[in-house]
Amino acid sequence: MTAPTYPALRLRPKANARAIRHGYPWVYQNELVLDRRARKIAPGGFAVLEDDARRPLGVVAVNTDSKISGRMLDRSATAVIDRAWMAERFRAALALRERLFDAPFYRLVHAEADGLPGVVVDRFGDTCIIQPNAAWAEVQIEALTAALAEVTGVATILKNAGGRTRALEGLDDEPAVLLGTAPDAPVPVPMNGATYMADLTGGQKTGLFYDQRPNHAFAASVARGARVLDVFSHVGGFGLACLAGGAASALAVDASGPALQLSRDGAEASGVADRFGTRKGDAFTVLEQLGTEGETFDVVICDPPAFAPTKAALDAGLRAYERVARLAAPLVAPGGVLGLCSCSHAADLSAFRATSARGIGRAGRQGRIIHQGFAGPDHPVLPQLAETGYLKALFFAL
Amino acid sequence: MTAPTYPALRLRPKANARAIRHGYPWVYQNELVLDRRARKIAPGGFAVLEDDARRPLGVVAVNTDSKISGRMLDRSATAVIDRAWMAERFRAALALRERLFDAPFYRLVHAEADGLPGVVVDRFGDTCIIQPNAAWAEVQIEALTAALAEVTGVATILKNAGGRTRALEGLDDEPAVLLGTAPDAPVPVPMNGATYMADLTGGQKTGLFYDQRPNHAFAASVARGARVLDVFSHVGGFGLACLAGGAASALAVDASGPALQLSRDGAEASGVADRFGTRKGDAFTVLEQLGTEGETFDVVICDPPAFAPTKAALDAGLRAYERVARLAAPLVAPGGVLGLCSCSHAADLSAFRATSARGIGRAGRQGRIIHQGFAGPDHPVLPQLAETGYLKALFFAL
Repeated sequence: MTAPTYPALRLRPKANARAIRHGYPWVYQNELVLDRRARKIAPGGFAVLEDDARRPLGVVAVNTDSKISGRMLDRSATAVIDRAWMAERFRAALALRERLFDAPFYRLVHAEADGLPGVVVDRFGDTCIIQPNAAWAEVQIEALTAALAEVTGVATILKNAGGRTRALEGLDDEPAVLLGTAPDAPVPVPMNGATYMADLTGGQKTGLFYDQRPNHAFAASVARGARVLDVFSHVGGFGLACLAGGAASALAVDASGPALQLSRDGAEASGVADRFGTRKGDAFTVLEQLGTEGETFDVVICDPPAFAPTKAALDAGLRAYERVARLAAPLVAPGGVLGLCSCSHAADLSAFRATSARGIGRAGRQGRIIHQGFAGPDHPVLPQLAETGYLKALFFAL
Repeated sequence: MTAPTYPALRLRPKANARAIRHGYPWVYQNELVLDRRARKIAPGGFAVLEDDARRPLGVVAVNTDSKISGRMLDRSATAVIDRAWMAERFRAALALRERLFDAPFYRLVHAEADGLPGVVVDRFGDTCIIQPNAAWAEVQIEALTAALAEVTGVATILKNAGGRTRALEGLDDEPAVLLGTAPDAPVPVPMNGATYMADLTGGQKTGLFYDQRPNHAFAASVARGARVLDVFSHVGGFGLACLAGGAASALAVDASGPALQLSRDGAEASGVADRFGTRKGDAFTVLEQLGTEGETFDVVICDPPAFAPTKAALDAGLRAYERVARLAAPLVAPGGVLGLCSCSHAADLSAFRATSARGIGRAGRQGRIIHQGFAGPDHPVLPQLAETGYLKALFFAL
């Protein structure tokens, strides 16, 4: 066995070394012996994690300023975390996506589950957007960029620094162009037979969410000939997929004018503009207005922003989800389908299901669940972190 | 308000009337006032359920000999449960399936969630198989048969009395031909681009399981060009779907000769017989043999029978699931996919996930979850009973 390359970082006796040995990817601040030597490791540096009997557990990325102070990078204590190592991880991530999809439009790297903790990469054909959401990735951004370019051959790599966890890691929120030139127009993205327009430099998060792909597909599968209402429509995710799947019409509701413009451009690019409409406004207000107008739809889908992003926001968040369900259910024609989504970490499937059912019940309707969906397969999760899967989509037959 | 048609059945004060009022479909024996009048209601009879203040909650099917002594049929206390009422329920169930599928091959009625408690109907084109798993359905089998024939127009209706819950309801296990003539040969069933052969009179349960349809589809989506191993293959569910989706080869393993013959006939009917092989034997033994032989596959799927059908069998069942994962993981080529399924009521998603991950870990592999699937949309569930969803399919990228 070769000598390790990095300084040692020791677990306290009360730490859960067994869980880490069995695949748990994080080491919490209070599990570490934070002596002077440990504190000398700069945020984003590497270390060999040892249990309290000094047995090595692997190489971790260190940030003792963060609650998650260690992130497992490699279970070999002699691993060297360099550009070649990163390229190997990117290659494995790419191989999985090429197994899953025909076209290069997907989440290429989903952090811990792809062996690159805190690193998210979305691919839009010839452009990648990287989110270095942990200190080590920020420190190593040049090597990551070079490895990513080498493996994918993309011409452009952009840095998105909008991740909510960056502040917890002591990182700034400055975006950057890491390779090539930022596209000066929205990029067409093929998904589920529709074409979406993604604004990679001005949009929310990375301009387009790949996570809902299988739930878009499910919605499309129940929308043949249907009148569809897509609430919190962003760039038209559900509405355009339903139109591509044969829906009679789709009305997209969003508070953002630019998002609605992108959805209209997407409808044009998808060849379904004649069946697509938009309505700008606060979603709750528009749901109430449509209810007052007595409008009904065969398929209604609500995909709101995270109402319960943290445990502290859980109660208020669940009330907001219930309100969405209560306002949306009356708009569903008899025998129709209601899709309700949550991208809140704090609201688990069981809580979200109960809240949604209560909202539907308060509207005087009864729903049966016909689909429970999560994020798509390009968003893999470690079994050890699976309880925290953030995205849930519930489809009810009313 | 018209006077109710049926005798009254009263809840005890401690019963959960609120849950029932909000959609919970069952009344337990210990929630009822079981006076002489209540005991006079024959198993399978109807009654108007009342709360302890004599406020009517709806019409229930009664079986005071069963732990589930009341099953909600209609929330209107004046409902009349006759052939016309049944036809209306069948019509609603049919409308949902016609929204979901192009061809008449699906679970048409999934009990409580389709408003027909304890009644399961699977449709195979011109033939329906009904499972009257609650006493009321057995008593009303003639009216149910007539209503089902009226709504669907099928030529043949068979009765399957193999349901595990029939004994709890005091019912026998005698199958019957209720309408038309039982088919004397296996019936071809189109699903996910493959053709399966269903033996409707001799097979397990109803001869073919529709519940795995979306999970078959997911497996097919990762199987292009892949060598596939389908363990506990029954009539070839996963293997044939993968071949239809472009897999290079599929090997089906099952202990049942007749099931393997049906899968070979299905491969023939699907035009993929040249890429399909079978191996007869105990699945555990064959998994061990393949491991010894050093065989690997790009996609391995294990869909065993219910190892943990009851809470009492949970520990032993979870050990069996772990063993399946431990024996199957080594057969997955690097970068390949392992699909593990459970149809055990007692093993919930969280327990099954932990067990599967442990088995994979014991094989020295690490898995990331890329798909968590449940039964298909023709198996709707009431939100109040959603925790009991029996089918889980977990796909891991190894």
